[in-house]
Amino acid sequence: MTAHTITHNRIPVLERRYTDIRAHSLQICKPLEIEDYVVQPTGDVSPPKWHLGHTTWFFETFILVPNFPGYEIFDPQYNFVFNSYYETVGARVVRTDRGNLSRPSVTEVYRYREYVDRHMQIFFQRGLPPQPVLKLLELGLNHEQQHQELLLTDIKYILGHNPLFPAYTKDINSHKEETGALEMIKVPEGVYEIGFSGDDFCFDNELGRHKLYLNAFDIASLPVTNGEYLQFIQDGGYTDFRHWHAEGWDWVKQNNTKAPLYWHFMDGEWMQYTLNGLQYVSPDEVLCHINFYEASAYAAWKGMRLPTEAEWEVASDKFEWGQRWEWTGSAYLPYPGFKKEAGAVGEYNGKFMVNQMVLRGASIATPEGHSRNTYRNFFHAKLQWQFTGIRLAK
Amino acid sequence: MTAHTITHNRIPVLERRYTDIRAHSLQICKPLEIEDYVVQPTGDVSPPKWHLGHTTWFFETFILVPNFPGYEIFDPQYNFVFNSYYETVGARVVRTDRGNLSRPSVTEVYRYREYVDRHMQIFFQRGLPPQPVLKLLELGLNHEQQHQELLLTDIKYILGHNPLFPAYTKDINSHKEETGALEMIKVPEGVYEIGFSGDDFCFDNELGRHKLYLNAFDIASLPVTNGEYLQFIQDGGYTDFRHWHAEGWDWVKQNNTKAPLYWHFMDGEWMQYTLNGLQYVSPDEVLCHINFYEASAYAAWKGMRLPTEAEWEVASDKFEWGQRWEWTGSAYLPYPGFKKEAGAVGEYNGKFMVNQMVLRGASIATPEGHSRNTYRNFFHAKLQWQFTGIRLAK
Amino acid sequence: MTAHTITHNRIPVLERRYTDIRAHSLQICKPLEIEDYVVQPTGDVSPPKWHLGHTTWFFETFILVPNFPGYEIFDPQYNFVFNSYYETVGARVVRTDRGNLSRPSVTEVYRYREYVDRHMQIFFQRGLPPQPVLKLLELGLNHEQQHQELLLTDIKYILGHNPLFPAYTKDINSHKEETGALEMIKVPEGVYEIGFSGDDFCFDNELGRHKLYLNAFDIASLPVTNGEYLQFIQDGGYTDFRHWHAEGWDWVKQNNTKAPLYWHFMDGEWMQYTLNGLQYVSPDEVLCHINFYEASAYAAWKGMRLPTEAEWEVASDKFEWGQRWEWTGSAYLPYPGFKKEAGAVGEYNGKFMVNQMVLRGASIATPEGHSRNTYRNFFHAKLQWQFTGIRLAK
Amino acid sequence: MTAHTITHNRIPVLERRYTDIRAHSLQICKPLEIEDYVVQPTGDVSPPKWHLGHTTWFFETFILVPNFPGYEIFDPQYNFVFNSYYETVGARVVRTDRGNLSRPSVTEVYRYREYVDRHMQIFFQRGLPPQPVLKLLELGLNHEQQHQELLLTDIKYILGHNPLFPAYTKDINSHKEETGALEMIKVPEGVYEIGFSGDDFCFDNELGRHKLYLNAFDIASLPVTNGEYLQFIQDGGYTDFRHWHAEGWDWVKQNNTKAPLYWHFMDGEWMQYTLNGLQYVSPDEVLCHINFYEASAYAAWKGMRLPTEAEWEVASDKFEWGQRWEWTGSAYLPYPGFKKEAGAVGEYNGKFMVNQMVLRGASIATPEGHSRNTYRNFFHAKLQWQFTGIRLAK
Repeated sequence: MTAHTITHNRIPVLERRYTDIRAHSLQICKPLEIEDYVVQPTGDVSPPKWHLGHTTWFFETFILVPNFPGYEIFDPQYNFVFNSYYETVGARVVRTDRGNLSRPSVTEVYRYREYVDRHMQIFFQRGLPPQPVLKLLELGLNHEQQHQELLLTDIKYILGHNPLFPAYTKDINSHKEETGALEMIKVPEGVYEIGFSGDDFCFDNELGRHKLYLNAFDIASLPVTNGEYLQFIQDGGYTDFRHWHAEGWDWVKQNNTKAPLYWHFMDGEWMQYTLNGLQYVSPDEVLCHINFYEASAYAAWKGMRLPTEAEWEVASDKFEWGQRWEWTGSAYLPYPGFKKEAGAVGEYNGKFMVNQMVLRGASIATPEGHSRNTYRNFFHAKLQWQFTGIRLAK
Repeated sequence: MTAHTITHNRIPVLERRYTDIRAHSLQICKPLEIEDYVVQPTGDVSPPKWHLGHTTWFFETFILVPNFPGYEIFDPQYNFVFNSYYETVGARVVRTDRGNLSRPSVTEVYRYREYVDRHMQIFFQRGLPPQPVLKLLELGLNHEQQHQELLLTDIKYILGHNPLFPAYTKDINSHKEETGALEMIKVPEGVYEIGFSGDDFCFDNELGRHKLYLNAFDIASLPVTNGEYLQFIQDGGYTDFRHWHAEGWDWVKQNNTKAPLYWHFMDGEWMQYTLNGLQYVSPDEVLCHINFYEASAYAAWKGMRLPTEAEWEVASDKFEWGQRWEWTGSAYLPYPGFKKEAGAVGEYNGKFMVNQMVLRGASIATPEGHSRNTYRNFFHAKLQWQFTGIRLAK
Repeated sequence: MTAHTITHNRIPVLERRYTDIRAHSLQICKPLEIEDYVVQPTGDVSPPKWHLGHTTWFFETFILVPNFPGYEIFDPQYNFVFNSYYETVGARVVRTDRGNLSRPSVTEVYRYREYVDRHMQIFFQRGLPPQPVLKLLELGLNHEQQHQELLLTDIKYILGHNPLFPAYTKDINSHKEETGALEMIKVPEGVYEIGFSGDDFCFDNELGRHKLYLNAFDIASLPVTNGEYLQFIQDGGYTDFRHWHAEGWDWVKQNNTKAPLYWHFMDGEWMQYTLNGLQYVSPDEVLCHINFYEASAYAAWKGMRLPTEAEWEVASDKFEWGQRWEWTGSAYLPYPGFKKEAGAVGEYNGKFMVNQMVLRGASIATPEGHSRNTYRNFFHAKLQWQFTGIRLAK
Repeated sequence: MTAHTITHNRIPVLERRYTDIRAHSLQICKPLEIEDYVVQPTGDVSPPKWHLGHTTWFFETFILVPNFPGYEIFDPQYNFVFNSYYETVGARVVRTDRGNLSRPSVTEVYRYREYVDRHMQIFFQRGLPPQPVLKLLELGLNHEQQHQELLLTDIKYILGHNPLFPAYTKDINSHKEETGALEMIKVPEGVYEIGFSGDDFCFDNELGRHKLYLNAFDIASLPVTNGEYLQFIQDGGYTDFRHWHAEGWDWVKQNNTKAPLYWHFMDGEWMQYTLNGLQYVSPDEVLCHINFYEASAYAAWKGMRLPTEAEWEVASDKFEWGQRWEWTGSAYLPYPGFKKEAGAVGEYNGKFMVNQMVLRGASIATPEGHSRNTYRNFFHAKLQWQFTGIRLAK
């Protein structure tokens, strides 16, 4: 996944990192009822127990099975249940079926995690694995961190689409207010470089660092707030096709969309479902849960545009980011010289490089230590359920 | 629901009956994991926790709320979650959404049952309710018994569509072998009467008892076995359109059907998922889980036909029945003089009287005391997931 | 198709009958533009040129090919294009694809008709065919008459769903006013007989004549008018679920139905598309183009019901019928003793005997000489595009 | 649509250009039967008569109505029928409905063309219109040329999906053989410029000319041939997921794709439907009718890739192009500084800039004089029905 050397190559560091990251997944699930682990209200959302099983399956399949002599697979059927999209490793379950599987039970999935973690510890005690294994291990940890973000967004979707609107927790504040004055940061034209460089981990899609030419551009110092977006709504933003892509406009009409995901107009007030339950929409908070169509329409209404991912990366040290994944105007395509890794991990990123848009930054759901300004997140233009936001450019 | 007097009108008898029936629903759910209560693999199947909540909601809504002064509704939102199809009592949840709801949790649903049961006991202690309430009560009990059968068929579907094929229990034998010699029972032509008469409970669709004229007919003394049906399969039954209704043939081709539901051809042997797990198909057992199209095609292949519901009822004291719901050749239509009850319970049966076929008898999943030879069960011709079978006529 | 002898067994009579019926199909198409022959706005409607080809293919395939030595098939590919549902005679085109086929052109289809008609004439001149062929011939003529009715209903659908609302002709009055006073005709209970008897042609589904027992019933002397149905609409008939079957109510909501097919509320007035173009809805005309759900809901709203097909047939000499196909409360099922014919013509009726409702009578689109009071027409409960109406019973 | 001056501003030149282009549309339709003008076998294909009407509607709506005092609209309803996607100008017909409209007839559409052409001639005789009108006129002519290409691709689809496989004409050779030796052309890294410049017409999406940085790359001197693609097929290209995008692989499996569009494996030979009818696939001909998924999979199998649109444009004077629209690896996105025009013509291009891939070059179906190396064609990745091909890069 990365062409670089894994530098935290001392066993205790590695083991601690493994233990911490694995524990964080369970931490996220702590407030859940068993029932919450099971359901899948829409195809893009996976049941939490599936996330827990799938990330575990990754370590079992790519680390233990090939590298731990004598390792016995916990349950041979789990490959069928917890493989996600790795065609190389066997038949996959159709994604939308995940929500129909009551077994293995949550208890069994936890047992599966314990079993694999126990063997990973033994594996660590046997000494430092060779570089290719270390790299797969690092990929597995980053993979689990990605699923930690999905766990949170999927849990929000599951609870936020329940007519009882149960709160997930009182401990996360996912809708912080934005401070500071909005200004447009100017960046001059010229040849710039983007893409990852250095020795640490990165995903294959961030390589290699390469030159590109940018025209001069301006980029906003702050993301768009609920209050600003409300003006778009109140100005008829969702009823005027001129702001929208043709495909976006079809989406608006088919779904009769009138506001971001999780917003409800109740008794004359805009409410939103948050991880803390139903709350009033605060105008000063950063906007969340809009898709690329909405982001583009808002920008068009403002007479501006979304930044490209290159503009974003080049300017990223001039503003604060990290509350929302910010839609860019760039399609998710390979960087010059992009090469897929051999084998199953080669399927990680490259095969999704069509009909997706790049998002940059990170969100309040991104695990600590998992962010960097070269990170290329990507989703289909219609998806709203991530913690997404808008930063304007012109 | 019935025009007759409720005769078991002594409080202790009534209370015992209520307690027993309510307890039986929980008995059925005993072998389940919590996760099994939640999922809905197809639109016709409901999650077990929904059945438990919905039957409870019936007593709360139709008995306690109107007849128990001072009763406080357990949770006003539950009407939204547990109402099934009673348009009169408020907006319903679209049926296919039930499997997306992780809340209320199973624990909360059990609490709901206890709460309503406790109030029902107090209600009983206040003295014998008037006849209309007694009749609703009786309907509620029969309604719960109907859902007990559905509970079992839905649990079988949930576990039988899990790639791990978990057994439900070892305590039920749902695939008993048939004994005795098959013969064709002759019934002479003439004017007969069918329909319910008497003072006990019956559903509105069984009323009123009426005359009809039957031609002479023959009806089989035994239902069709797996072995007989296997001959149909081996003779190319699923590949020769001539045996099938046009609609049935489309169903075969669209689903690439080759055998009854739950049958799997594995390593050269026919296996079937049963409530005890995966087992070999035994030729002597009574055939199960075929739909009306399959029943009709089998009969056509045999050069025979399905009995009408009138033929079945008239002859029903001449053979044993009760292992399988037996498809008849009769569409589910109102008897002469059929009248819907006023109010919400009027929606119970009449509104389904189009595009459904009548099944007669009972099955191993039918609760004790819930069967009679005037009972009119009905399902859409394509459905297989009930414990259905075939009895031939000519 | 019929067990009886074909009695008009003199060649000149037969030939005249063939010529007249074949000419009538072309007569119906006379007002069409070539483009009107081609399109298929919905799966239940067939393009007019397909009707012309399919009825011709019937004579070619079932009369000429097996019985005319030396006959050369006009175009071997036409079996693929013009076979409708006769699985026995080869692979069929999926019905909804018919509207995509611009070839064979209308001119070629007319040439096909001329070619087959010319050979049929030669065939007649060779002498009287044996009884089985005569019977197939009679079936072919009745088959063509059935398609003449479909031609008219499909043409109405094609033109009536064009935003320009072009008239078909000025020569047909399909919306005559009803005269005479409405009364309820009383029929006493007893054993009656229904079904076809006699030597003339009938379809296999009308056989055999058999006894049945009817309770006493009342049946209306006149069909329902637009004015009566307007009262149902104005009383909120389409917004009150209590009148409807569950399936019918789903249909109403999914399609947002507010009135019969072809009705449009324009500038405060109800208009309807007729074969003569757009016209005001006249209250005195006989209601048309409602489906079984609507017919049943209307009857329920009136506190009455639809007659069964047996009631209709038994009473049919006591009222005038023939303007509208009248929905009955009977599902389309085999009569006692029904037997499919051997071979391809055996597919004619029996395989549709599930999930369809019987209509009795005839309509203004039915060709002369094609009606009788034992005729069993049938359509799916949701279909409106035939010239259908309502006669109440109780 | 273009920021530049229209230079062919002498009336006779303009009039001749108008006449020639308008005549060419009719020329394309000459071999058609009337029936061929009407059908729409799939949503992306439009009936030929719609193309003829829609291009005419463009001149009527944007030139005559606002600029020809006293002009009377031919038929006010035509705006409803022939508007395609211009939301500004009124409600549009849903695209997939076009194939259901038998009226206006082909004769009426020709009359519509004559009426508008006659008024355009009078309009020209009144003197040179002002620049903004000239620019709209030029846009209208280029718009008609674009529909000429679609006319041909749609006619091919209509006839090529008819089971009779009728030839369109014998006069076009759409499958010419490729000559010359394949070599990889080397282009050094550096800052380049792409985008249109000059005074002639271009579409808004080609503006403005801008700098970009390219790494060194190689690009093929020739497009891929049938023979080369056959090797991909024979090597199992359509059965090995590793070559495909995830979305492409889903497309392959859902459609059971085994070869390019119009290819049929018949009696052991690959045949293809061409505008001249069914022919053997010749290995030396240029490959045609593959979508972006197939183009990408082929490139991956070859260990190469598709060029970006910038690479293609920069290198385009080093190779011959014009037989096939060549899929690039670039998503269709706005160039730096892209601005939508005001009003309805602003909808021309910008609103499609999401989830489409860019194609460069031209095809044998592109009208003469309509090609340039800055032209940005675009289609959804799954579409095959254009005359598309592959040029490899690395």
